[in-house]
Amino acid sequence: MTHSSPSDQSRAPNAVILLSGGIDSTTTAAVAIDRGFSLHALTIQYGQRHDVELKAAERVARALKIERHIVQAIDLRVFGGSALTDDLDVPLDRDENVVPGDIPITYVPARNTIFLAHALAFAETVGAFDIFIGANAVDYSGYPDCRPEFIAKFEELANLATAAAVRGQGRFRVHAPLLELPKADIIREGVRLGVDFGLTHSCYAPNSQGLACGRCDSCIIRRKGFAAADITDPTRYA
Amino acid sequence: MTHSSPSDQSRAPNAVILLSGGIDSTTTAAVAIDRGFSLHALTIQYGQRHDVELKAAERVARALKIERHIVQAIDLRVFGGSALTDDLDVPLDRDENVVPGDIPITYVPARNTIFLAHALAFAETVGAFDIFIGANAVDYSGYPDCRPEFIAKFEELANLATAAAVRGQGRFRVHAPLLELPKADIIREGVRLGVDFGLTHSCYAPNSQGLACGRCDSCIIRRKGFAAADITDPTRYA
Repeated sequence: MTHSSPSDQSRAPNAVILLSGGIDSTTTAAVAIDRGFSLHALTIQYGQRHDVELKAAERVARALKIERHIVQAIDLRVFGGSALTDDLDVPLDRDENVVPGDIPITYVPARNTIFLAHALAFAETVGAFDIFIGANAVDYSGYPDCRPEFIAKFEELANLATAAAVRGQGRFRVHAPLLELPKADIIREGVRLGVDFGLTHSCYAPNSQGLACGRCDSCIIRRKGFAAADITDPTRYA
Repeated sequence: MTHSSPSDQSRAPNAVILLSGGIDSTTTAAVAIDRGFSLHALTIQYGQRHDVELKAAERVARALKIERHIVQAIDLRVFGGSALTDDLDVPLDRDENVVPGDIPITYVPARNTIFLAHALAFAETVGAFDIFIGANAVDYSGYPDCRPEFIAKFEELANLATAAAVRGQGRFRVHAPLLELPKADIIREGVRLGVDFGLTHSCYAPNSQGLACGRCDSCIIRRKGFAAADITDPTRYA
């Protein structure tokens, strides 16, 4: 063992991040890097109607100098059942994303269960025990799989499911550092950590040039977040 | 509501079965049908080196008159790490599959977590609350995700993860009816339920004509199972 040097940075513990290229996952990646992890990013392309998100994830991975970025295509359209995977219209110009107690039509069945399952496989393969996800229970309070109890339960499952855990090589932890933060606080945290949100993408219904619509639930949450944070929104809207 | 008639068979509750086309998942499907479920089968093609399994699953789905059978391709090779997804050699002619306390090299990281996550999405989409999996903790005792505690934990997760459960429309159940059965008992149960095991496929290393090698762990377990059950093995070995 030699004494610490810049080349020893590769000895930072590996972690896996589910990276969509939106505000939340990008800020979560910055948090993970700030906590000293070497990031392996997993972007899941799940039959969205646009690949603008994928390009955003690639931009973010480059900007954050993420060690490895893989994209996994999963066709969730074989199941059907969501505006993000079907040909349903994305609702526009709604003042509030979530009707209290209701689940948005943009809910994708078992989405975060699937995403975390794949992240767990990736983590075990690269010897990581830490999985980061940008889940948020404030703006997405209608999604059952964005709740703290879901995240905690998945962590329990991960420690039963895997050879690495059963062999006692480590204990999996699922980190959702933004879980309880309003969007404005997420944006402030990202800015504090040097994130360029101009690289990120949130829109559910971008135009053919990839510009955000400014009117879907996701754009509305984003705009309100920047306004509440009193930070200029770098997004180019159509 | 009219009184019961043969056309009312469509009113049997839906269930999802993870169908690989091997002995265990095929027998599990027969058990589910015997329990009165209308089956939606999900075969996950996960970068195996052969598609013989897929053809077996299709034969089984037809023979059992399964209502709907979908195949979902998931490339687990992006993660690496297993004989079933990598180019490692499958071990042959080992007398025992499992060294007690050890995990076979055919372990695929988080495989059953991924499979059950996708089955859960399928179930929620088709309005099913019952998921059947042919997991077995006897012959595959080395796999962490074939243990009863894993299955039970996934069931807990499913009931936190999904809109259908949170809305109180039902409670998800993960059925692993073969969990504690030795292979001979599984084969006897399948035969009792009319399964034609000649349609199924077990081999990890089939030849170019799709014939089973007879020498890999999976073939050895299969052969011993038929021998122990005193039932003629209908498999054609290479």
